[in-house]
Amino acid sequence: MAVGIEKKPQLLAVPGIRVGVAKAGIKKADRRDLVIFEITSGASMVGVFTRNAFCAAPVHIAKQHLQQREKKQNTYFLINTGNANAGTGEQGMLDAKSCSDSLAQLVRVNKNNILPFSTGVIGERLPVDKIINGLPQAVESLSEMGWEEAGYGIMTTDTRIKGFSKTIHVDGESIALTGICKGAGMIKPDMATMLAFIATDAKIESSLLQSYFSEAVNKSFNRITIDGDTSTNDACMLVATGKSHVMISEENKQTADIFRVALTSLCESLAQAIVRDGEGATKFITIQVEQASSQQEALDVGYAVAHSPLVKTALFASDPNWGRILAAVGRAGVDELAIDKINIYLNDVCIVEQGCRASDYTEQAGQTVMQQEDILIRIVLGRGHAHETIWTTDLSYDYVKINAEYRT
Amino acid sequence: MAVGIEKKPQLLAVPGIRVGVAKAGIKKADRRDLVIFEITSGASMVGVFTRNAFCAAPVHIAKQHLQQREKKQNTYFLINTGNANAGTGEQGMLDAKSCSDSLAQLVRVNKNNILPFSTGVIGERLPVDKIINGLPQAVESLSEMGWEEAGYGIMTTDTRIKGFSKTIHVDGESIALTGICKGAGMIKPDMATMLAFIATDAKIESSLLQSYFSEAVNKSFNRITIDGDTSTNDACMLVATGKSHVMISEENKQTADIFRVALTSLCESLAQAIVRDGEGATKFITIQVEQASSQQEALDVGYAVAHSPLVKTALFASDPNWGRILAAVGRAGVDELAIDKINIYLNDVCIVEQGCRASDYTEQAGQTVMQQEDILIRIVLGRGHAHETIWTTDLSYDYVKINAEYRT
Repeated sequence: MAVGIEKKPQLLAVPGIRVGVAKAGIKKADRRDLVIFEITSGASMVGVFTRNAFCAAPVHIAKQHLQQREKKQNTYFLINTGNANAGTGEQGMLDAKSCSDSLAQLVRVNKNNILPFSTGVIGERLPVDKIINGLPQAVESLSEMGWEEAGYGIMTTDTRIKGFSKTIHVDGESIALTGICKGAGMIKPDMATMLAFIATDAKIESSLLQSYFSEAVNKSFNRITIDGDTSTNDACMLVATGKSHVMISEENKQTADIFRVALTSLCESLAQAIVRDGEGATKFITIQVEQASSQQEALDVGYAVAHSPLVKTALFASDPNWGRILAAVGRAGVDELAIDKINIYLNDVCIVEQGCRASDYTEQAGQTVMQQEDILIRIVLGRGHAHETIWTTDLSYDYVKINAEYRT
Repeated sequence: MAVGIEKKPQLLAVPGIRVGVAKAGIKKADRRDLVIFEITSGASMVGVFTRNAFCAAPVHIAKQHLQQREKKQNTYFLINTGNANAGTGEQGMLDAKSCSDSLAQLVRVNKNNILPFSTGVIGERLPVDKIINGLPQAVESLSEMGWEEAGYGIMTTDTRIKGFSKTIHVDGESIALTGICKGAGMIKPDMATMLAFIATDAKIESSLLQSYFSEAVNKSFNRITIDGDTSTNDACMLVATGKSHVMISEENKQTADIFRVALTSLCESLAQAIVRDGEGATKFITIQVEQASSQQEALDVGYAVAHSPLVKTALFASDPNWGRILAAVGRAGVDELAIDKINIYLNDVCIVEQGCRASDYTEQAGQTVMQQEDILIRIVLGRGHAHETIWTTDLSYDYVKINAEYRT
């Protein structure tokens, strides 16, 4: 189940990046489950990784190799589905290294130039032999046009491929920006994980790239929530190959801003695609908190509403149960919240006015909004100028079904 | 649906307290929906109220009257179900006052000696006339033996009466301790609320009573969670009538300790009864976090596990999915969590040992525990000496059903 219509993405090649896919039979036969990204030497590369204390073996190694890689050589991402290599202790580290060392040998680069990523079941040993045996097939298929195959190759319980491309026009030149991702991150930690791989052919220095990426991730992947859980394997990677003629730097603010906005927008599209394909999702909910006294306050209120099972079940039932939204705002822990300044809207229908049911609100008006697939809950606090937007889903029978029956 | 077998409580009278019940037809005809407690003059009285910023009109008034009441006169609790009088603004305040003033007139006490409590639907006007018309019947039925009737009278969607009594033997005397409560607090804010009314005939000064009660509430009602929501009307009241010969004071530490332990134990029993009757509950889960470096840390870990929909759906499915518990611990935000020191147990079965799947763990052993109705999840952090216990339920189809269909 997923919200909205599936659109097959048109993914642009990014000069300096080749992508290869193999069917290694890691968990199931005849399924794309091994993906390799080949990234040209000299590329800038940054990442954002899970903050879960139980982060998996490949996350440790990927973080380490990101720092230690030899920049004069190509770098490779080695991604497997079907097994997260998490909760596997020292053996998991050895297994991840066996696979990445094997790829390093095959493509003749420094061992530190392989960054491993795993997603799948927690607590089972990585099938090292299957992965190593699949490597030649993946390397052989490396192609600038491999993004779509990779989009399918990183899926686990995703029901749809998730990918977007943009062409950015600046200074009379154009640069490509392409990304793929898979759910579900906060959706299912033991079918770990959320993974995203994004690349551009712009030239951009690493520290600036990191700052733009952190901002973009913060406004996108860090603003989605299905059930409040975060996984052990989450990782987002951004690469700038520098193969185009466009240089992004702080000296040319206008160009830099265009790039930043495009990058944030691409990340938002990917993040929203994850939510739309959330487990059991029947609604796509945008929660916009306005006039907060700080961004943290806006987030606290937004997440209190987004995580409330009572709000989520009401959304599933298309029930405009404004009391539940109001009660969730009230328990968000905001200091000295003046309820008589709060207005709440469902799309353009005012449901709460100065802390009470809006005088001209009718159940029918609320019902009409709630029956739609895309719903905006706008909470106006009347305290200041900060605002934040987060995206979430409803809580349906299917969410319980999928998660209760996942391993059976 | 509820966990375990219903036991009809044997509720002891508490000298100095009379309880009356009426059928006022507030929401449904022929249903006990109005309860009055008459509390003797000179009694000590303390309360703990919701921290939800949107607290309802009666909560404001009850808090105010608790301070302003005339102690030389009787005090009355006026409790109605069927309507929470929340989200009703200024009109809600006037309505609550009309009802409590009317009772004050009927029983001839100061207006400040009536403390109102409401529970039921949010955002609808309190049916003042029905309540006022029901008052004489409730007053007429006042009796020391009225506790059980009151237990039924405060129920809303509760499927069971919740009440406990203890006789405490100290200094060759005995004192009575009786309490009733209704769910659901964190269970359903718009069928607001959790309410608890507890009384003893011990003599005890208000500030000491407040300190004991805060501690007891903290270890009981504040340690239960069904879905993380808190309601707009939650209130717990404790009364000490002083009609027995037993004086509780800090001078006699042994007697005071016996009283404190009994009070905390009674509150735990009431709180656990709420969880067992949680919406759609099929399991009663105790989460015990040990060897934390602080109580807050123990609570953070416990709530991260208790609120994880992935853990809760696995519990519903009787699936010993240890990866989900481990991932929830990992995202609890504990600084520098050393995963190789963590052990996790399901009842007496070790599932995680030094951060990995326990070497002698078998799915069958985990499965055997998970099929039980009462499950203990014990998380040993290996960081310090703090520990905390919280109680929760699983997340079932029926939870979604009840909450999705509540208003339809």
